[in-house]
Amino acid sequence: MTNQKRMLLGSFFQTFLGHHLAAWRYPETKTEEVTSLSLYKEIAELSEKGKFDIIFLADVLAHNEEDIAYTPQIRLEATTMMASLASITKNIGLVATLSTTFTHPFNVARQFATIDHMSGGRAAWNIVTTAHDHEAANFGLEEQLDHSIRYERADEFVEVTKKLWDSWEKDTLLFDRENGIFLDEKKIHPIYHEGKYFKVRGPINIPRPPQGYPLLVTASASDKGREFAVKHADILFTLAPSTVEEGKAVYQTIKRKVAVYGRNPEHFKIMPGIVPFVGKTEKEAIEKFEHFQELILPQLGIGWLSRYVDHDLSQYSPDDPMPELKEVDQVNGEKGRFKLLSDLARERNYTIKELARYFVATQGHLFVVGSGEQVADTLSDWYLNGAADGFNIKFPYFPGGIKDFVDYAIPVLQERGLVQTEYADGTLREKLGLDYPSLSTVNV
Amino acid sequence: MTNQKRMLLGSFFQTFLGHHLAAWRYPETKTEEVTSLSLYKEIAELSEKGKFDIIFLADVLAHNEEDIAYTPQIRLEATTMMASLASITKNIGLVATLSTTFTHPFNVARQFATIDHMSGGRAAWNIVTTAHDHEAANFGLEEQLDHSIRYERADEFVEVTKKLWDSWEKDTLLFDRENGIFLDEKKIHPIYHEGKYFKVRGPINIPRPPQGYPLLVTASASDKGREFAVKHADILFTLAPSTVEEGKAVYQTIKRKVAVYGRNPEHFKIMPGIVPFVGKTEKEAIEKFEHFQELILPQLGIGWLSRYVDHDLSQYSPDDPMPELKEVDQVNGEKGRFKLLSDLARERNYTIKELARYFVATQGHLFVVGSGEQVADTLSDWYLNGAADGFNIKFPYFPGGIKDFVDYAIPVLQERGLVQTEYADGTLREKLGLDYPSLSTVNV
Repeated sequence: MTNQKRMLLGSFFQTFLGHHLAAWRYPETKTEEVTSLSLYKEIAELSEKGKFDIIFLADVLAHNEEDIAYTPQIRLEATTMMASLASITKNIGLVATLSTTFTHPFNVARQFATIDHMSGGRAAWNIVTTAHDHEAANFGLEEQLDHSIRYERADEFVEVTKKLWDSWEKDTLLFDRENGIFLDEKKIHPIYHEGKYFKVRGPINIPRPPQGYPLLVTASASDKGREFAVKHADILFTLAPSTVEEGKAVYQTIKRKVAVYGRNPEHFKIMPGIVPFVGKTEKEAIEKFEHFQELILPQLGIGWLSRYVDHDLSQYSPDDPMPELKEVDQVNGEKGRFKLLSDLARERNYTIKELARYFVATQGHLFVVGSGEQVADTLSDWYLNGAADGFNIKFPYFPGGIKDFVDYAIPVLQERGLVQTEYADGTLREKLGLDYPSLSTVNV
Repeated sequence: MTNQKRMLLGSFFQTFLGHHLAAWRYPETKTEEVTSLSLYKEIAELSEKGKFDIIFLADVLAHNEEDIAYTPQIRLEATTMMASLASITKNIGLVATLSTTFTHPFNVARQFATIDHMSGGRAAWNIVTTAHDHEAANFGLEEQLDHSIRYERADEFVEVTKKLWDSWEKDTLLFDRENGIFLDEKKIHPIYHEGKYFKVRGPINIPRPPQGYPLLVTASASDKGREFAVKHADILFTLAPSTVEEGKAVYQTIKRKVAVYGRNPEHFKIMPGIVPFVGKTEKEAIEKFEHFQELILPQLGIGWLSRYVDHDLSQYSPDDPMPELKEVDQVNGEKGRFKLLSDLARERNYTIKELARYFVATQGHLFVVGSGEQVADTLSDWYLNGAADGFNIKFPYFPGGIKDFVDYAIPVLQERGLVQTEYADGTLREKLGLDYPSLSTVNV
């Protein structure tokens, strides 16, 4: 187990070719491999080469029809994708996104237990609730469930999955060939869960995962979501505010909440997202970024932006100023990103096209363009000033964006002793210095 | 595409060490690897070495508590397991079992579409309904849904998944970097499905799978189940009757039903299960089988047998005769296996222990002990007499049971020109000479 404090790095990928929504047009992007294992294998291999702690795959349950022609929105299903990568990676943590809104905890507990076994203890679950009407419509609802109901359900959902993972004690398997005793049946327990949303007898039919529980990750930004996070998660993925000072304040507030829940704040990792355009030199990085911005069609991203600001922008001209938006309390979708975009629109008097261009490049995340040194400086600044435990790196394009980062930024961070140069042994929890979950909920 | 008629071979595995329920006690069985990728990777590699057409993973949603100490019943979740094998195999079809009873078609369509993309068109879905009360109790029900409701739901479920796979036409992706057009949005269609069980807007957010639809497999044996099979499936996995003559009659009946549904019977493959104990010589095979039978404890398999005969046998002594069982119509579980076991109990006057010993070795499947030649003779007999299109080989133990078959039986079958000696190019459907599904249900 490694206990030395260091900056954690997540390699964030989507199955639509890059975080920059025009990435697919860039000549070096492997656009034609968008549905091929070859591309995702390369992303995983480059991430392990860079000694990233985790690889992180987002997922949603619908695309945005308004600009699907210009904005690739292919979303390969995250748990099966991560399972595919489990058998061709050795050390990296595998974070797959799965919503609690339209699945059942018995199935989800089994999926993640299986990935944890197949990967030798490297599975992680990014727990989300399903936020948009388009997604709800694929599951028979006219509109999504109310925000507070989604989190109430998510809370019980995770409680049930933990009980199921706990339903086999750690040393249940005996393999006593001589006497014909395969396992100790006294160490397997039904859970008899009866709650508001679920009734589950248990036990699960899979031995306890190597990590006890797969690592639990969430990106929730609302009040209810943050409460959910500090109660359940090991890693919180955040949309950072614009300055280190603000970031530090948010960081400290969250860590205090973790302590209020009786948990060790050191064992709760806060990782903001950041989009780096890295070049061999600053000049090269700027040229690359400018090239990407030139690839943005006027209409690109407006449909997607509409969804995040909860307002149909296709009814206006792209050169119109941003219309008046709802108040954050009235929004039933992703509140964190709504607030950030709504503030930006107001403060900077952006036209629709301008806000869309900003959104296409960053999707609201921190953003840095520069040499490896410069990118490392930005990360160090946040990390050493106590505003982050690490970062989810949101690469602008694939696989080149990872390669740039691994070639130019990682060596600088390693030289400065901020990130690991080799993987530690053990499960993902052990590699990150997190505790093995205790059997808190076993029914006997 | 290969059009030459040949015997299809499926490599059937469970994640509990062998089809013989005492397999885990056999010295050569890799019992300690029961939850490790290493074992399943070896099984997949041996299966590709033997040029098996498909690898087939069963799954259920609960274990049988009565004899879990003696009968390993670990069931790693099948879709994530198969996704793990997708990236480390090249040619074999990957059949994962997933129940329609407690999942949603939007999620399932995405899981199998992803496996199909990641494997280059080798995904297959073994469609089951959830048959036992213990499984239903993990999803909030006191007892399982009625048999006919399960199949009505399954029928609509598969209809929805097909519509979702059809919701992207084949040539939707354009990758027109020059003009910034990623795809042709006119080729993506909402499905607006509204049925008795599901309301799904669609489209899916994943391009059409390489196979059109992943291969569809089922093992349904009841009347309703067979109707479901001939309507939807490409492969029917069966529990064979005891003689070739009976097998031929069943085969012909099913093929006629396929024709009644307007489908080409040649494109519907019937594959009974068979358990082979293969040795270098007949003597070696018999000794191996006898060794396995000696490993059976008196209580082994009685709990599991109870479930299949829908009667708690733990209340009797193992030496008692089999009690009177229900009539097949009263059984809400797996009707095919119930009938076989119930007939056997009656015809042979078995004691509970005797029927359990038979069940432990075969789970009701065809069964052969012998040299490679002898095993090949049995398979040829069924195949050449028109009682099967191929077989699901249910290996007694892992990984040795596959190795024995590949070393001793496969070369004989290959010499006789009955099975393939190399894989054909293309997707699984192409390798098996099956049609690419037409876009029958696209809404425009």
